[in-house]
Amino acid sequence: MGVEWESLIDGVKKGDIRALAKMITRVENREPGWMEAMRRIYPYTGKAHVIGITGSPGAGKSTLTNKITSDLVDRGYKVGIVAVDPSSPFSGGALLGDRLRMRDVSLLDGVFVRSMATRGALGGLNQAARDVVKIMDAFGKDFVIIETVGVGQDEVEIVKTADIVLVICVPGQGDAIQAIKAGVMEIADIYVVNKADREGADQVVSDIRAMLDLSTEENAPRPPIMKTIASTGEGVPQLVAAVLDLLKKESQKRERQKLQVKEEILVILEQEVAKFLRQQFDKNGKLEKEVQEVVQGKRDPYSIVQEMITPLMKDLQISNAK
Amino acid sequence: MGVEWESLIDGVKKGDIRALAKMITRVENREPGWMEAMRRIYPYTGKAHVIGITGSPGAGKSTLTNKITSDLVDRGYKVGIVAVDPSSPFSGGALLGDRLRMRDVSLLDGVFVRSMATRGALGGLNQAARDVVKIMDAFGKDFVIIETVGVGQDEVEIVKTADIVLVICVPGQGDAIQAIKAGVMEIADIYVVNKADREGADQVVSDIRAMLDLSTEENAPRPPIMKTIASTGEGVPQLVAAVLDLLKKESQKRERQKLQVKEEILVILEQEVAKFLRQQFDKNGKLEKEVQEVVQGKRDPYSIVQEMITPLMKDLQISNAK
Repeated sequence: MGVEWESLIDGVKKGDIRALAKMITRVENREPGWMEAMRRIYPYTGKAHVIGITGSPGAGKSTLTNKITSDLVDRGYKVGIVAVDPSSPFSGGALLGDRLRMRDVSLLDGVFVRSMATRGALGGLNQAARDVVKIMDAFGKDFVIIETVGVGQDEVEIVKTADIVLVICVPGQGDAIQAIKAGVMEIADIYVVNKADREGADQVVSDIRAMLDLSTEENAPRPPIMKTIASTGEGVPQLVAAVLDLLKKESQKRERQKLQVKEEILVILEQEVAKFLRQQFDKNGKLEKEVQEVVQGKRDPYSIVQEMITPLMKDLQISNAK
Repeated sequence: MGVEWESLIDGVKKGDIRALAKMITRVENREPGWMEAMRRIYPYTGKAHVIGITGSPGAGKSTLTNKITSDLVDRGYKVGIVAVDPSSPFSGGALLGDRLRMRDVSLLDGVFVRSMATRGALGGLNQAARDVVKIMDAFGKDFVIIETVGVGQDEVEIVKTADIVLVICVPGQGDAIQAIKAGVMEIADIYVVNKADREGADQVVSDIRAMLDLSTEENAPRPPIMKTIASTGEGVPQLVAAVLDLLKKESQKRERQKLQVKEEILVILEQEVAKFLRQQFDKNGKLEKEVQEVVQGKRDPYSIVQEMITPLMKDLQISNAK
């Protein structure tokens, strides 16, 4: 491993913010040595609590993230924010005015904000978010907040890896529950009805309750439904208290972690194998003839893959059985 | 291949809408036989023109897509729409009211709308969108419009595969150009300043011009900048005429297609290999011991992958060299 990685790893362990930012970028880009570097910081992870925040666009997730962060900082905690929401001011997808408005929290002592673009090939967004969380964890953050918009499957997967998931609903979005993708409502540990001063807030609360009536057994414990007004901060201390409370009862955590670890190993393995295959084919120019044939209309991409894959799979099966 | 695939393929070729919808779903889900099915319809593809429409959230992409579609239908063309934008009314991510408002175009004769969720693992969104375009193409659509929001890398990749790309900007979004992710502005074949009746529209036009001044050589041809008011339809006939005009001059198309074919082969190959590896490991419960060790804090996921990957790569290299 290169000298630069060594100094980045040292820097992260010592709490050097520039090293933190650099290491995240390099791991995101899968620069040579990244896996070894992650292996090296892994023993320093496992302390941070991960809070996932999701909801429909316009639900006020960023403002709420801001307020929760301030509250946690006031309680003496160090907080990292991973913004995956493409419309989030944190991730730079939003209007300039919003971005300026949001700058305050990132200037707070002990707060580090990292935005992530939706990644390209290989479903890397999910794994990349996990890596960033781990690096922030090793850096010494007590909490890492992952903010995603609850509309894409990728975003659901990411937020699922959190220790605790807040799903944010707002009144005045037609059917507030419908506005959130199916599959998102179900993963909440706490429901938050934000902009609770708006007309229809109580309706949203009873909509959520009705949904829970349908989906949970009669005497099963139900996730709490809390009201906030993120813009004024109303309800935020109670919400943070509920989060902290829930984090103490982590009976399910180990099972959840087991699934995550397996998924993580498989995803990294897939990515590495895919990268390797791509390098192989790019190197030997093996595909040029086939591509030409497709462009000329003589063949199709699917039969080419079928032809390539049979010997590959035979080899993989042998290697696996060893 | 199963009897059901046969009848779906037949249905698609005959223009049966239910077969079209079903085949898309099955290919998206990668149901057994999907690759063979795509191979079978491939000879019927290549006729449709693909128009990519992208821009920041709130730029009016869906309204514009609607109006362009109506215009093309009026000219006698059959149109397919692939909505990838999570905030698009077409893809169901938006408010109920918007969705109702948009319903008109999907009821037009010869129009088929398909929304796509951001897919899970393996960067499948891009490839899945390409598959859907091909199926619509084989079905007999003259045009397929792909609508994506210009904020994520995935979305940029998708829209890049179109024959022609419209980037939509609007006044009143602070710095309208900044609001669109870097990398999106550069791929436009036509710039559209929508909501052109708003204050600041001319400023947006000159901002785009200034950007082009910086990024293109002095005498190089530049993409046109056109103004529209999608809500009233103003400027849309001129825009469609420009699109049709540009599609006639397709000198670069073959080179573009070559890159796309290669990418497509590699992505399908990666997906299939990843799926295969996952099945192998799920089957033999090989990972259980390793996962347990990680949960117990004895090992880390990265060193496990490193251990697994070395023999795999050796095999793949051999198989590749054959």
